[in-house]
Amino acid sequence: MILGNFIGFARSARGTVTFSSSNSMDGIARSEIFCEATSEEVIEACERANQAFIEFSQLPNTSRGQFLRRIADLLQQQKENLEPIYCAESGLSPERFESELLRTLRQLYNFAELSESGAWRNASIDTSNPNQDPPKPDLRKMCIPIGPVVVFGASNFPLAYSTIGGDAAAALAVGCPVIIKAHPLHAATSDFVAALVVQAAEETGMPDGVFSHVHAKGFRVGTELVQHPFVKAVGFTGSLAGGRALFDLANNRTEPIPVFAEMGSVNPVFILPEFLQKEKENWVEMLANSMISGLGQFCTNPGLIFVIDNEVTDEFLQMLSSDFLSKVSTAMLHSSIKDRFDQGKLQMEIHGAEMHQSLGDMSDNVARQALGAIRAKQFIQNPKFQEEVFGPFTLIVRCSDMYDLASCVDVLNGQLTASILGSRDEIRFQNQLVIKLQNKVGRIIFNGVPTGVDIAPSMQHGGPYPASTDNRFGAVGIDSAQRFVRPVAYQNCPEDLLPEPLKNKNLFNIVRRVNGVFTADAINF
Amino acid sequence: MILGNFIGFARSARGTVTFSSSNSMDGIARSEIFCEATSEEVIEACERANQAFIEFSQLPNTSRGQFLRRIADLLQQQKENLEPIYCAESGLSPERFESELLRTLRQLYNFAELSESGAWRNASIDTSNPNQDPPKPDLRKMCIPIGPVVVFGASNFPLAYSTIGGDAAAALAVGCPVIIKAHPLHAATSDFVAALVVQAAEETGMPDGVFSHVHAKGFRVGTELVQHPFVKAVGFTGSLAGGRALFDLANNRTEPIPVFAEMGSVNPVFILPEFLQKEKENWVEMLANSMISGLGQFCTNPGLIFVIDNEVTDEFLQMLSSDFLSKVSTAMLHSSIKDRFDQGKLQMEIHGAEMHQSLGDMSDNVARQALGAIRAKQFIQNPKFQEEVFGPFTLIVRCSDMYDLASCVDVLNGQLTASILGSRDEIRFQNQLVIKLQNKVGRIIFNGVPTGVDIAPSMQHGGPYPASTDNRFGAVGIDSAQRFVRPVAYQNCPEDLLPEPLKNKNLFNIVRRVNGVFTADAINF
Repeated sequence: MILGNFIGFARSARGTVTFSSSNSMDGIARSEIFCEATSEEVIEACERANQAFIEFSQLPNTSRGQFLRRIADLLQQQKENLEPIYCAESGLSPERFESELLRTLRQLYNFAELSESGAWRNASIDTSNPNQDPPKPDLRKMCIPIGPVVVFGASNFPLAYSTIGGDAAAALAVGCPVIIKAHPLHAATSDFVAALVVQAAEETGMPDGVFSHVHAKGFRVGTELVQHPFVKAVGFTGSLAGGRALFDLANNRTEPIPVFAEMGSVNPVFILPEFLQKEKENWVEMLANSMISGLGQFCTNPGLIFVIDNEVTDEFLQMLSSDFLSKVSTAMLHSSIKDRFDQGKLQMEIHGAEMHQSLGDMSDNVARQALGAIRAKQFIQNPKFQEEVFGPFTLIVRCSDMYDLASCVDVLNGQLTASILGSRDEIRFQNQLVIKLQNKVGRIIFNGVPTGVDIAPSMQHGGPYPASTDNRFGAVGIDSAQRFVRPVAYQNCPEDLLPEPLKNKNLFNIVRRVNGVFTADAINF
Repeated sequence: MILGNFIGFARSARGTVTFSSSNSMDGIARSEIFCEATSEEVIEACERANQAFIEFSQLPNTSRGQFLRRIADLLQQQKENLEPIYCAESGLSPERFESELLRTLRQLYNFAELSESGAWRNASIDTSNPNQDPPKPDLRKMCIPIGPVVVFGASNFPLAYSTIGGDAAAALAVGCPVIIKAHPLHAATSDFVAALVVQAAEETGMPDGVFSHVHAKGFRVGTELVQHPFVKAVGFTGSLAGGRALFDLANNRTEPIPVFAEMGSVNPVFILPEFLQKEKENWVEMLANSMISGLGQFCTNPGLIFVIDNEVTDEFLQMLSSDFLSKVSTAMLHSSIKDRFDQGKLQMEIHGAEMHQSLGDMSDNVARQALGAIRAKQFIQNPKFQEEVFGPFTLIVRCSDMYDLASCVDVLNGQLTASILGSRDEIRFQNQLVIKLQNKVGRIIFNGVPTGVDIAPSMQHGGPYPASTDNRFGAVGIDSAQRFVRPVAYQNCPEDLLPEPLKNKNLFNIVRRVNGVFTADAINF
């Protein structure tokens, strides 16, 4: 069965280059054959998106919400058909499918609500004052969508951060057409979901071009998309090398565009000594579970643990090591990812980490989880120890004392998260450490593990480079929609010509900043 | 008199390369001799800024406000001494000095208030729910400063967008140390102001390094600053070539940083026919004044006017031309700027614009204002006609009809502003034009001129490239401080360890989003 791309609502398979994805566990090629998008198909997807843009951006508040809700309905209806494809391609379990689907649905509902509420407009109104010198004009400002957005599917989240995941839902919610570059490792999952999105778009009367979906195994299609003048932003979740390449492409355009790449992070965990003494037993299991969770294939995987050397620590590490290394491992997302994982572990060993590896299943694509151990001095001197080993690997950094640990923080790269495990007194005493850390990360977790990223509005998923390319924004939660909008001001615009969110009467009761005060009230003169 | 740099609070003149600025009117070199910063001085300024950062960012709410207010006081006290330097170097009038000083003071007060209010934190709180599956953690998010910011002085705003102008005040308000690269054309003005900023910083107990000020005539110092790893953002107002060069430098760093460059814009004005017929007389003077304002050296100068061909239009253009060309012109900011202005006009003529030039004063640095005229077809075919001619020059584009005009909008580059002069019915009828335009600009003005940028919070000063490098932010008003902050989330942080803006009791009564609702209330459990 040859599956083409979706160029707008239409299937299109004009190219001659084809490929297949494979089942993660045994590496056997699947029956679906995907046809790589040609350059012409890429251009057409961009042109359709551009044509759809103005109509899509001008839809009434409720329409885009309906579209997103309809996608969620279809995903629910088709989950039995989707699950086997998802599990086979990714090697992820049915339980993971359930939880990732639930997350995807929640995201769709949250963004539908956001779209309907108009809260993303950040409406701000300053009424005129003709008596001021010079006379103060009537100024009203709100956010509008920036235009077509290209989203690259993520290898590690075939649903929640791919075809209709966070980035795509956020862009669609605020009126940006989306072009998906499907991840080739789960092309069948992506294709299945794309067909549902197209169906939902047609059923809810969206303009053709609001969503396209293109396949490719190599870099050409992605490059052409990022370089097309109609594309106005890029969303990406993946490796540092991949994210940086897209970032560079986008910034070398005649008109540069923002790239929101969520890339490498090793999510350091700092365990303070008093805490460890009291809580050792409780936290072995908690940490080991976080380390094995998703087989270490989460962007928030705890890849670094800092401890202070003493007898309790030795005992704790012993327990952690035996717990973690004895866990049953499964297949990684793909054999190529497993190969890179093995390479990464080897590099750590070559650079001098003392390695402890699981003796578990040796079959083809099953990862053997590992712990490495180094001293603070090694960490400080060799930046290689900060590189992410994608998979179930954690590096323990043994520090002589808190000064030693603080020196490690000084050289630490940007991270998505940092976790501090400490007694209340210890943390209070280490306040300077917390302040230093907040300048290195996007999220600080107190007495918790970094995995498990809640999708609440107050989440921040994004950190200083190389964790993200633009840490003024995040990739999770409704605020992530702010990546795809920009403010426009209307000066002395007659009331009847103003966009709805800026009219005096405030039909949808959105919270607006009116003459400096946040209020959902209408403006009365 | 040799004047060095300020490396933190200390004067420093270690270099051997010196230069002087000149008086704009006669080109005669001034007596002050400026010592270019050496590479070592640049590094030291960055290191001091980095050292000051954490202390500065952790100051109580009121302290940074006091600092900014003290700067305003000193500027007020010293205005008689500052005015002659400002006027001589820039060629700008004493009246302009007064109004620019007033704007600078207002900006300082607005940013002081912003700093004190804590509104810039964008605080967001989602309280925990242990009964949810999975349990919902306590998540609290707020903005923190990104780190040291480099600001390049603007040639056309020696006060309001230079040494302690909008960019610098915005960065300082939110806790980012600032390093100023002084504009060499008004080095003496910049130096005078820098000394006041340093005095204010010392008097209000700011950490040394919170502000540095370096001189240079060429590109080396600016390049070194933008490339230094401690620098986390750049503010720039100037030419497209200059802004793009800094943008490219910043994006080619190992750790890319944002560059907020406010660059070229020709601020198109669209005059609809019915309006013109009725309002011709009233608007000749209004437009001509906007065109000559600041001698066309404002970023919002109306450089393009679109009209529909007919007899009324001919009459109007006749009147506009004779009014505008007969205005008394004065010296431009500098002879080098005058030379580029003359070059720009020549280019327009070479490319086929029908030129009408003032016959006024021919003395050395006085600009001869000019109008050019082309047809829509020429505009559409030749992108050269979209290039900014910095100075008192406006290009008239004659369109056969509204379709012709709409075709011009289709090829229009990104702009800071667009102005529509039309009757209410005309504008309503041309609603699609307004929607098209909003996707090209940062601000739409209805029946008004683009010059005169109000500093109200609802202003948006920034547009799609090449108007700005990052149009998700603006360069005017308190929201411009959002360029220099990023969000950080605190997960399950004990109440007593939370930063003040996120604590339950909400000591400073800031508006926060609590479980999705905007409120200034405390949180009670």
